[in-house]
Amino acid sequence: MKLVLLSGGSGKRLWPLSSDARPKQFIKRLKNGSDQWESMLQRVWRQLERNDLSEITYISTGEAQVELIHSQLGQQVPLIIEPERRDTFPAIALAASYFNSADGDDLDEVITVMPVDPYVEDQFFDKIKGLEDVIHDSDANLALIGVMPTDPSTKYGYIVPSRETSDRNQPFVNVDCFKEKPSKQEAKLLIRQHALWNCGVFSFRLRYLIQLMEDRGLPTQYDDLKREYQQLPTTSFDYEVVEKAERVVVAPYCGLWKDLGTWNALTEDMQTNLIGNGLVSEECANTHVMNDLDIPITVLGVSNVVVAASPDGILVSDKLASHRVKELVERLERRPMFEERRWGWYRVLDYKTTTEREVLTKRLCIHAGKNISYQYHQMRSEVWTIVAGTGEVALDGHLYQVKPGDVLQIPVGAKHGVKAITELEVIEVQLGTKLVEEDIVRLYLSWEEMKNAFELY
Amino acid sequence: MKLVLLSGGSGKRLWPLSSDARPKQFIKRLKNGSDQWESMLQRVWRQLERNDLSEITYISTGEAQVELIHSQLGQQVPLIIEPERRDTFPAIALAASYFNSADGDDLDEVITVMPVDPYVEDQFFDKIKGLEDVIHDSDANLALIGVMPTDPSTKYGYIVPSRETSDRNQPFVNVDCFKEKPSKQEAKLLIRQHALWNCGVFSFRLRYLIQLMEDRGLPTQYDDLKREYQQLPTTSFDYEVVEKAERVVVAPYCGLWKDLGTWNALTEDMQTNLIGNGLVSEECANTHVMNDLDIPITVLGVSNVVVAASPDGILVSDKLASHRVKELVERLERRPMFEERRWGWYRVLDYKTTTEREVLTKRLCIHAGKNISYQYHQMRSEVWTIVAGTGEVALDGHLYQVKPGDVLQIPVGAKHGVKAITELEVIEVQLGTKLVEEDIVRLYLSWEEMKNAFELY
Repeated sequence: MKLVLLSGGSGKRLWPLSSDARPKQFIKRLKNGSDQWESMLQRVWRQLERNDLSEITYISTGEAQVELIHSQLGQQVPLIIEPERRDTFPAIALAASYFNSADGDDLDEVITVMPVDPYVEDQFFDKIKGLEDVIHDSDANLALIGVMPTDPSTKYGYIVPSRETSDRNQPFVNVDCFKEKPSKQEAKLLIRQHALWNCGVFSFRLRYLIQLMEDRGLPTQYDDLKREYQQLPTTSFDYEVVEKAERVVVAPYCGLWKDLGTWNALTEDMQTNLIGNGLVSEECANTHVMNDLDIPITVLGVSNVVVAASPDGILVSDKLASHRVKELVERLERRPMFEERRWGWYRVLDYKTTTEREVLTKRLCIHAGKNISYQYHQMRSEVWTIVAGTGEVALDGHLYQVKPGDVLQIPVGAKHGVKAITELEVIEVQLGTKLVEEDIVRLYLSWEEMKNAFELY
Repeated sequence: MKLVLLSGGSGKRLWPLSSDARPKQFIKRLKNGSDQWESMLQRVWRQLERNDLSEITYISTGEAQVELIHSQLGQQVPLIIEPERRDTFPAIALAASYFNSADGDDLDEVITVMPVDPYVEDQFFDKIKGLEDVIHDSDANLALIGVMPTDPSTKYGYIVPSRETSDRNQPFVNVDCFKEKPSKQEAKLLIRQHALWNCGVFSFRLRYLIQLMEDRGLPTQYDDLKREYQQLPTTSFDYEVVEKAERVVVAPYCGLWKDLGTWNALTEDMQTNLIGNGLVSEECANTHVMNDLDIPITVLGVSNVVVAASPDGILVSDKLASHRVKELVERLERRPMFEERRWGWYRVLDYKTTTEREVLTKRLCIHAGKNISYQYHQMRSEVWTIVAGTGEVALDGHLYQVKPGDVLQIPVGAKHGVKAITELEVIEVQLGTKLVEEDIVRLYLSWEEMKNAFELY
């Protein structure tokens, strides 16, 4: 079996902690066993490792998330990178073409796809392992995991089993149809019919999807499909494949499963009502504060709300309305104010634009041993004040040792790079006519390569 | 008549827009006639000018507020400065001693005291003017203004008139007693007895207070009282004088009067539910957002709350609980993050302390023609990046013309100052073992004086 972990979504639903630059699966808001913060991605990867599944797992993602995944899971994790963001059908088709050509897998190989963000217990992964047998034993085209509902939720899709399936102790049952986001009344009826929640886990033989792609006239070789990727339909795998398929079975799962996609769900199990700097008055019931800012947040006499703050924004939301955050904040257009990078992170402290010029002040943190590539900017000058740590700075062909208090002036066009010896912190002031992250011309990606080139200068 | 405007309070009740460094009377949250923002102090001063009262007005305040008052009302406004913050009795006694000695007033002079923060119509000032006649006509020791209650509020003090006073068209009536913050039930009863709200306006003949001070063995000469100021009791004028006085009268006032001391009161008449960067979803009823930060605030599905944000903090409060802000935030101890100064303002963008050193990043704005005095620091170095405007910088005896992009490195002990030619903006990075506003040794307060001294260097 091969496992494909889908890490695509941009996740404005947990704004302002998540954003396009920092999708929700990357924000570190879960506690691991050792009482440290980890992201949904890190949690699921840790569970895959513990259940001997990480060796057969590939992460399907987009270019924009590569740095973040490497930063959180290391450089070694195998990625299948979409040329651009579309939807789950193109992403899964790309993974299938990869296994079909690049990996040269047997067409009988079972492929299992799962999202990156379910909050589950280890026994969920036993179910995933079991899907290989389900495919073999059932001879179905598709095998799904269905979560036993705990309430008549209207937020999920329901998998409706066939009427003739009466023995609920079977490892799998036939699927009759699907029902997306029913009303409360319908959901109650569905539960009486033993319907299960669709948690986005699908298994199939590689042959099945390759055949389906051929039927649609899509390339089945990885390089070809990648080239034509932008012509693929922007549809979900559910819509394009699952709902139209014949011979679908579902394996019921009765353990813990949570969709941490809304603030309401994410705060449900929090041990504390306050993470970060602030104060919640005693009479606030079911109110949670998550503060990534240095600025203290005080909540006084307000119940059933979530307050979340990051450099990107401040949200004050009724818990039950929090699923609407995404639609609301799509109206806000703003540059990212915090990003995690291969080399560390930066945070925007101040940003001011006038007709004459733009001014942006950042705090950068470069982890020990990491470097920012040798580069120059076409539209901005920079002033760096080193405020902590030690490092090497390359500036127009010269190398300097830097320490706190040192100041570097980098005019437009000046080549520069920096490597942290110990964790290095810099306050950077950018001045220019237009300040965008994309205004970077990279000269060398490797620090050693650059230093060698310097000797030839 | 002399009018004393009491501008003392530190005003944590409108935290985080107000703070010890920026008391509530200075925050610009009221609209003037020309649709510009003004502070409570600026509004009341504009009203005093329009009603020909500013010429006889003195502001009683503390050292900490002098710069702010000068910045908002100009340098010419007469101040009576308390050597340290105590309460209203010492402050009013100090004003009386000033009129008695420094100003050499007649002991028959009528002194009227009023707080700086009532939100009133112009006819309130007619009442104030009328107090002089009330004192003469009644021969009372004290004359107060009493506001006609509009509801049985439990937040105010009530002035209870004598039973024999039946003619409510009199310009004044005798006071029987005072009742501080009654219950709702009591308040209803008080209103039936024609009780009035105490709005903190008192008139008396100078002789009355000087006599009272002599009776208590207090100095009545300004310089003497100033010297012994720290031995004065920290009590209010209400408690120390008004409630114990005989022959007190009250002049009823029936117009608009509001105590803008709580978020609930301040937001009551706002024309818009959002000031600053953000979004309030449609279904939020009676919810107001005041955002002084660049970070957008989104409020989703929460009614009857105020959200206020400044670099000092973020408040999310139920409207009716907002009077408790003060007690709550007194637990938060933090350096000021925003201050208005004689020369402009600064705002802290970032502040980080480690055992080794502290790092603080500020944005400074120096108004055209203003200067920061020539000074040096004993515990910190500074890096200034000029990001907007033009100016003159003095550094260790040399004078430089500066423009955007220029960088100045100011080591510990280096003398420096800056004068803005056009409005000048600077990003300042401070590094030091201990960063406090007080680490300033001022050499010259006048720029011209300093420049002259330079020629002798």
